[in-house]
Amino acid sequence: MKITKDLYQSSLVLLTDFYQLTMAYAYWKSGKGEQEAVFNLFFRKHPFEGGFTIAAGLDYVIDFCRNFKFESADLEYLAEMKSQDGSPLFEPAFLAYLSQLQFSCDIDAVEEGTVVFPNAPLIRVKGPLIQCQLLETPLLNILNFQTLIATKAARINLAAQGDPVLEFGLRRAQGIDGALAASRAAYIGGCASTSNVMAGKLFGIPVSGTHAHSWIMSFDTELEAFKAYAEAFPDQCVFLVDTYDTLHGVKNAIKVGEMLRSKGKEMIGIRIDSGDLAYFSSQARQMLDEAGFPDAKIVASNDLDEQIISSLKTQDAAINVWGVGTKLVTAFDQPALGAVYKLSAVKNENGDWEPKVKVSQQSLKINIPGLHNVKRYYSQDKAVADMIYLEDQEIDPRGVVIIDPIDPTRRKRLMPAFYKEEILLKPIFKQGEKVYDRPSLTQIRDRASKQLEALDKTHKRLVNPHLYPVGLEENLHHLRMNLVLNAKKFEGEHEES
Amino acid sequence: MKITKDLYQSSLVLLTDFYQLTMAYAYWKSGKGEQEAVFNLFFRKHPFEGGFTIAAGLDYVIDFCRNFKFESADLEYLAEMKSQDGSPLFEPAFLAYLSQLQFSCDIDAVEEGTVVFPNAPLIRVKGPLIQCQLLETPLLNILNFQTLIATKAARINLAAQGDPVLEFGLRRAQGIDGALAASRAAYIGGCASTSNVMAGKLFGIPVSGTHAHSWIMSFDTELEAFKAYAEAFPDQCVFLVDTYDTLHGVKNAIKVGEMLRSKGKEMIGIRIDSGDLAYFSSQARQMLDEAGFPDAKIVASNDLDEQIISSLKTQDAAINVWGVGTKLVTAFDQPALGAVYKLSAVKNENGDWEPKVKVSQQSLKINIPGLHNVKRYYSQDKAVADMIYLEDQEIDPRGVVIIDPIDPTRRKRLMPAFYKEEILLKPIFKQGEKVYDRPSLTQIRDRASKQLEALDKTHKRLVNPHLYPVGLEENLHHLRMNLVLNAKKFEGEHEES
Repeated sequence: MKITKDLYQSSLVLLTDFYQLTMAYAYWKSGKGEQEAVFNLFFRKHPFEGGFTIAAGLDYVIDFCRNFKFESADLEYLAEMKSQDGSPLFEPAFLAYLSQLQFSCDIDAVEEGTVVFPNAPLIRVKGPLIQCQLLETPLLNILNFQTLIATKAARINLAAQGDPVLEFGLRRAQGIDGALAASRAAYIGGCASTSNVMAGKLFGIPVSGTHAHSWIMSFDTELEAFKAYAEAFPDQCVFLVDTYDTLHGVKNAIKVGEMLRSKGKEMIGIRIDSGDLAYFSSQARQMLDEAGFPDAKIVASNDLDEQIISSLKTQDAAINVWGVGTKLVTAFDQPALGAVYKLSAVKNENGDWEPKVKVSQQSLKINIPGLHNVKRYYSQDKAVADMIYLEDQEIDPRGVVIIDPIDPTRRKRLMPAFYKEEILLKPIFKQGEKVYDRPSLTQIRDRASKQLEALDKTHKRLVNPHLYPVGLEENLHHLRMNLVLNAKKFEGEHEES
Repeated sequence: MKITKDLYQSSLVLLTDFYQLTMAYAYWKSGKGEQEAVFNLFFRKHPFEGGFTIAAGLDYVIDFCRNFKFESADLEYLAEMKSQDGSPLFEPAFLAYLSQLQFSCDIDAVEEGTVVFPNAPLIRVKGPLIQCQLLETPLLNILNFQTLIATKAARINLAAQGDPVLEFGLRRAQGIDGALAASRAAYIGGCASTSNVMAGKLFGIPVSGTHAHSWIMSFDTELEAFKAYAEAFPDQCVFLVDTYDTLHGVKNAIKVGEMLRSKGKEMIGIRIDSGDLAYFSSQARQMLDEAGFPDAKIVASNDLDEQIISSLKTQDAAINVWGVGTKLVTAFDQPALGAVYKLSAVKNENGDWEPKVKVSQQSLKINIPGLHNVKRYYSQDKAVADMIYLEDQEIDPRGVVIIDPIDPTRRKRLMPAFYKEEILLKPIFKQGEKVYDRPSLTQIRDRASKQLEALDKTHKRLVNPHLYPVGLEENLHHLRMNLVLNAKKFEGEHEES
């Protein structure tokens, strides 16, 4: 897949915040443009009050980086920008620099479909300051949204307990790509299909859909409408029964189902899109069973989400397939993930990496410094804990202490030798060259499914989940604490400089 | 602007729900494909518990329709789809029909920037059933989202009471176009600028932005960072003061402001992005005033929306400029508008229009039948009421009764002769030909501003607004009632057919 290239005409290099460009210019002016830096993209809290998050969007990021190039139209636009006094905002030499800019960063990232947790990096960018800055906004745009939707989809699929979940959110999605990227992420999170034909074509996702109320209304009677649909698609009949009167609609569906059967065809089922889904599905099930259609599926839709599906499940609603739109593709109850992208180290003039923290009034907001990575420890295929550690730190296989990044009194001792381990940040680009083989979307979807299997069910509870342990390796914890204390002191000392 | 053409490589004709294509096929099979129909796109409830909505997105719709064409890659994709028994899902003759399909609908629509109300059409599509169906999903996708965001932006701008509102939501927006379309709609709704450079380039929206915390952190001290920024942009300095300690940051900003002044330059102001914005802005204002910078602006950001801005205003926060991101571009508290697209008439074999309703268990959900339009009556430049009426209905200038579409006991008598009137649905396409001159984005933004001025302030209250009167002209009301009663009876009569 090369979605950004297939879909978009123009270079997307200007899909960034203007301040990234003003900073790029100011870095360039002050001779720091090529200074090496490390940035990490991470979120601080699971969405939806949940206990897990599914990473998604890396494939878009790869495309974005591979097409990272200022084209002449981009530079012309920047050249026209004016300062307050009417002079050009950017010097021509800077624009010439941008025109020559080649993407040359190292990017390490968590693979799509991986279960991820707060504070640990989803992606790490190491490279010249200017490039790191320009990448901040597009990376956040892409990963925030797709990760959010993959997570929502996984929650909805957990609620559906293995029943197929069909995504049909296009009409309510936030923009064209808000729909396309959501369909992709929803499929990663476990949905069976999308209604969005373009997403089907671009990503190879199965598409599904039958007919709408307007189909029924364009005929004189519902029965005529069902018959005409059965003529066109004798193999694919899911009759929408609630245009006029739901249970009367079920009767009409049964009539046409019998007609189909007389021709050796079998209707697939019915769909209910309004009213009390628990009541109507049970009634419809009984009618279908009594009429000799025990295998006819009942599809339900109408503003469903994981909470409503869970509730219908506990009410023994006779629903076999769930159609989910608005609440899934907009992540209705929390429509933004809120991941951030923070500087964690810069290389100084001596070539040494200096770890960096942003001190904040809220300790929750202090980032993790240095060039760090994440190890996940598994015991018998179950994930037991994640450790965030400095990449050059040796880990003692006989014992390591991990410390919660928010509450340092929460600690856990692990014996790495007893566990299988997986390093979560994998090399994607080395000095601008792609070194990663992209998995197919099906492989990504399988990874998400296996990753969720590896997670204890207490972490997957939709409400009040048990917190999965994620901690800083002891040395990284101490480095961070010292930097915070120093930074506060440091600013005071330099007050008069 | 030709956004879909400028931005997207491929035809967007497949950006639709799969069931539109299966219905198209079934219409074609049953010989109804070219039957004329009328569909209306409308919403049922203002977003955000508000009293008004601002229409936006028509320009995208115009592009979409002008590029409405099945290309060979689209048809190849459809040709590969299989039925349950492995045979092609669509007959080749149908795909040949699609390949020849020329957009030939009449489209009438409310202009962008118009204040609109529930149940009245935003757009009306009249044309062959197949085309009307295929357009349903993309029109909903485009108009639902942009209308939602323009409305949110208008609310935020009302809360800011004339202070500039800067939109910088790209990093949290839902996908690439979720950001671009949001920037456009936010500008229509009154925002002063966007941070999204690509939106600036594509739409001509002013862009703004200065620097981030990472700029500060990449230097040894905050003061050094401010100085280096001032070197690069002596005319454009808005210093972000809260990387380490907010009030200490203000002191450093003042120092660099004095240095700038000694060179004949003036700093624009400071930005505060965390902490108690009421407290810090007041403290900063006092410090800036005492240091001789009474004109330095204070920009505030950090998860702002109309409620928080209103609250800060009542606390006399010393904030001059508001930076708004996530809550605006995702419409965080209600991330989908929920507009629908309903069949309201079909032309029968005799060439007569048959009005249609979808009967529902909820009377709220019964659509308005027939070929209707909307008149807005103005008294001394204030909008007094909207009337939804059948286009071929003569309106008596001496008196007309409008009836609320939900609660028929709510009625209002109007004397059209006393008012200025505006017909809201304007011709956009006639038989597939564009007949509308697109206004510029600035003109659209002006229209939104004037439309809001024409609305009484009680309808613009952010909480518990007074309801603006919108009703069905009497004859349309009776037609609708009769159709509903008939439809319920009709289905019963045909039960055994």
